[in-house]
Formats: sequence, structure tokens, C-alpha cells
Amino acid sequence: MTKNPTACLLVIGNEVLSGRTQDANINFLAKGLGAIGIPLREVRVIPDVPETIISTVNEVRAKFDHVFTTGGIGPTHDDITSECVAAAFGVPWEPHPEAWARMEAHYAKTPDGVASFNKARQRMATMPRGATLIDNAISIAPGFSIGNVHVMAGVPRIMQAMFATLATTLAGGAPIISRAVHATRAAEGQIAAPLEAIQTRYPELDIGSYPYYRAHGQGVAIVAKGTSEEQAEAAIAEVTAMFEGFGVTPIQGEPDAA
Amino acid sequence: MTKNPTACLLVIGNEVLSGRTQDANINFLAKGLGAIGIPLREVRVIPDVPETIISTVNEVRAKFDHVFTTGGIGPTHDDITSECVAAAFGVPWEPHPEAWARMEAHYAKTPDGVASFNKARQRMATMPRGATLIDNAISIAPGFSIGNVHVMAGVPRIMQAMFATLATTLAGGAPIISRAVHATRAAEGQIAAPLEAIQTRYPELDIGSYPYYRAHGQGVAIVAKGTSEEQAEAAIAEVTAMFEGFGVTPIQGEPDAA
Repeated sequence: MTKNPTACLLVIGNEVLSGRTQDANINFLAKGLGAIGIPLREVRVIPDVPETIISTVNEVRAKFDHVFTTGGIGPTHDDITSECVAAAFGVPWEPHPEAWARMEAHYAKTPDGVASFNKARQRMATMPRGATLIDNAISIAPGFSIGNVHVMAGVPRIMQAMFATLATTLAGGAPIISRAVHATRAAEGQIAAPLEAIQTRYPELDIGSYPYYRAHGQGVAIVAKGTSEEQAEAAIAEVTAMFEGFGVTPIQGEPDAA
Repeated sequence: MTKNPTACLLVIGNEVLSGRTQDANINFLAKGLGAIGIPLREVRVIPDVPETIISTVNEVRAKFDHVFTTGGIGPTHDDITSECVAAAFGVPWEPHPEAWARMEAHYAKTPDGVASFNKARQRMATMPRGATLIDNAISIAPGFSIGNVHVMAGVPRIMQAMFATLATTLAGGAPIISRAVHATRAAEGQIAAPLEAIQTRYPELDIGSYPYYRAHGQGVAIVAKGTSEEQAEAAIAEVTAMFEGFGVTPIQGEPDAA
């Protein structure tokens, strides 16, 4: 797994920090980035404060191979991601000809015509110099990439459409695969020592232990993640045998959600 | 709002970064901290990597008035938050007499008796020297506070029980209150300029604009947050009048979820 490029996600917006909005982008991108072999290594949720956005972008773009941002690219006063990314890169924030053309053409077809491509909407076609567009199949206004920073919308369905396009352009490593086994009535405190021994035998896997509390019972799920399917399956076979040794019944896969 | 103490949340665990687990703690704590006047200013989701946990704890405990952590205090090999917090503070990680007594007494009553208070479970009673306990009404093993860092479980219902106790001990500022109005068929690009003018007139409020896409229609919700109910209501009254000026029908509050 050490050869995979790494990712950091910046969720930009007061609404997540205030609890107004339940974030849905972290989980989607965690899975999507794992699937293309660019595992997510850190997430930061930060407010709509210019200095915070600028310094955070500069810190994490130096630390990770890719930085993805969600939020703050709409037309209102609280949407400041784009200009802050320009400031972070020290480049002008200026009309992007292709984004401008796409949005002007879109608004020309609306009932109010090209007049509705007003100053606020023109901000959405204004980007750091050198940005390349990320298509927006849902609502026209594109996201963009500059260097290793990929700027996407915060609205989940728009972000997801942007990521679908963007993902095809990124060179990932081996996909992160996952195998799991769980056992109702197993207790973490009981299995901790033999589980640690299994983790030690598979240093390239990330083996996690997660208690669950469900209507159908409570127990422990063990998940092995890595780039080798063979190793993940071998480790989960050992965990399965370990559960049997404790007299609980292992069930392959994750527990049902309910 | 500048006089309120500030909070940072560290979500510690590979399972959130891999997408295995959908975090539920950020939103709960965002609301809970706002309600006691300790607004959440940053969240970081970080992996179970000692150097990352130690350096992040030290960075954010210097930057924010309070740091809350969730995850990594169970008995298995991937639970390393407690020893990393001890390392961050440069204090010994040692048995906590009261936590030890509580857990020993609990396991003495289980079918296997005190023998089931094994090495793995003893780790959960091992804490940074000087830690004060955070009660765990659900599963005994306590969380703890040291300095301005509050270490809680990752399992949502356990974390929520811990936070309920902890919150009563923290000196917060004025609660953050919120008022909202929304209008179907309103567009952010249309209202951006007058909305910015309203934000400028209420510099102590945080006024956010959030598009929504629901089965019952799409539109824009405007949310004003701050410590003054009077100001939030005055700002939302101005937004309501602004919506009326655009010929759309404002509805007080947030849009229905569905």
C-alpha cells in the first residue's frame, strides 16, 4: 500500500461545522478514492474563512499527492473557495474563457436571457489562472483542478458527477480491497490478543476491529484492507478460525445494517 | 460570537477514511457544542498512526480552547488514542486507579469473573497521568479529559452518553442560535447581491446560503447563526422581504428533509 498516491479532503463550509448540514461527501469520496487506489489519508472540515482556507490548502497540498475540496464554489458571498485557492497558489483569479463561454451560453437560453449571467454567476466562471475544468453535468458551473488540488461542488449529487469525470483523469495505484468477517456475541476485549498477532503477521494489511450494536444482536466485525486480495482473504480466514476457537459463530462479510 | 470558546474535533480512525464507517459524530457534536456555546471551528479525520495523532493533538490543543476526540479507546491493537494523548502531553501512560477499580468490579460480575479483566481490557483503564474520567453509562470503560483535550469513544451512542456528562462540566459562551427562511424556485445567482448586502449589515452573524433539491421542489435556504436571537430574526426578516421582492414565496424555517 505504500506505493499508492495519497489523498486529503477539505470539506469547506460553516454549515458542516455548525451542524446545519450532515456531510455526505466524506464517505462517498473515501470509498471512491479507495476504489481508484488513491486512499484518503486525512479529512479537514474548515470554515469559510479566507486565511484558514489559504493556509490549509498550502499545508496539505505539500503533504499529500492529491487534495480534493468540496464546497464554496457557488455564487453567494459565503462561496470563497475558488479565490482562496488562487491566493494559495499565488496566481491571479480571473475569468476562465471556457467556463465563461459555457455559462454564458447556458444563461442565454434561460427566460431572462444573457442578462441572468450576472456578476454573481460570473464569479463561478472566475478561476485561478491555469485551472483545468471539471465538468458539471448537473448544473453547468464547472469545478477545476490546479496542480494537485481538485475543487468540487459541495452539493452531493453535483460533487458526485464531477468526481465521476475527474476520477478517469487521475493515475491511481492498486485499488484498496476489503474483506470482513463478524461474529455476534464476540467481545473485543476477548479477541484482542490473538487479533493483534494476526495483524503482526500481515503488516501490509490494515486490520480493524469494530463493535456493532444491531437489532439482530451485538458483536464484533473484523475488516482487513489492503491491495492484495490474497492476503486479505488469508487474514480473514485466520480471524474466522480465531472466532471458532472462542466458540462463537463467524459469519463472512460485514453485519447487516439494521 | 468572538467571545465564545472554540472547539476542534479529531475523529480518529482508519474506518472513516476508508469509507467503511459513515461518521455520525461530527454532526452530533457540531450541534451539541453550538448549543453550549463552544462552537466547532475545525474537524480533522486522521488515521490510527501514532505520529499523526500525537502531532495533530499538539497542534490543535494550542490553537483551540477545547479539543474533543472520538475513536480509538477500545481494547484492540488499532485503539491507540489514549497512549498517543499521553505522548502528546509528555506524561506517563499508566493505570488510572478509579477507572481500574470500576472496570475490575464490572468484570468480576461477568461469568468468567475477574479473569476476564484481561490485559486488553486493562489497557482501557490505562490513561495519561493526571486524566480526569468521563463517565460511560453504556459500557463502563470511561473516557477522560487532560488539559483541554477530551477523549471519547467512537461508537455514537457511547460518545453521546459521554458528551452528555462532559458538557455539564464545560464553561461555554452564549449558545449559538439559528434562524432560517427558504423559498422554492429562488436561485442563489439571483439573490447573491442583496444577500451579501444583508450579511454586511449584520457582521456578527454568519449568514449562509444553501441550495436544496427536494421531491417537493428546489430552491434556496438562508440560515443566520449567531449569539443574538434579535439580530438573527432581524436579518431573516430582511431576507424574507428580499425573497418577496423577487416574486418568490418565502417560508420560515428550513425546508423539509424529503
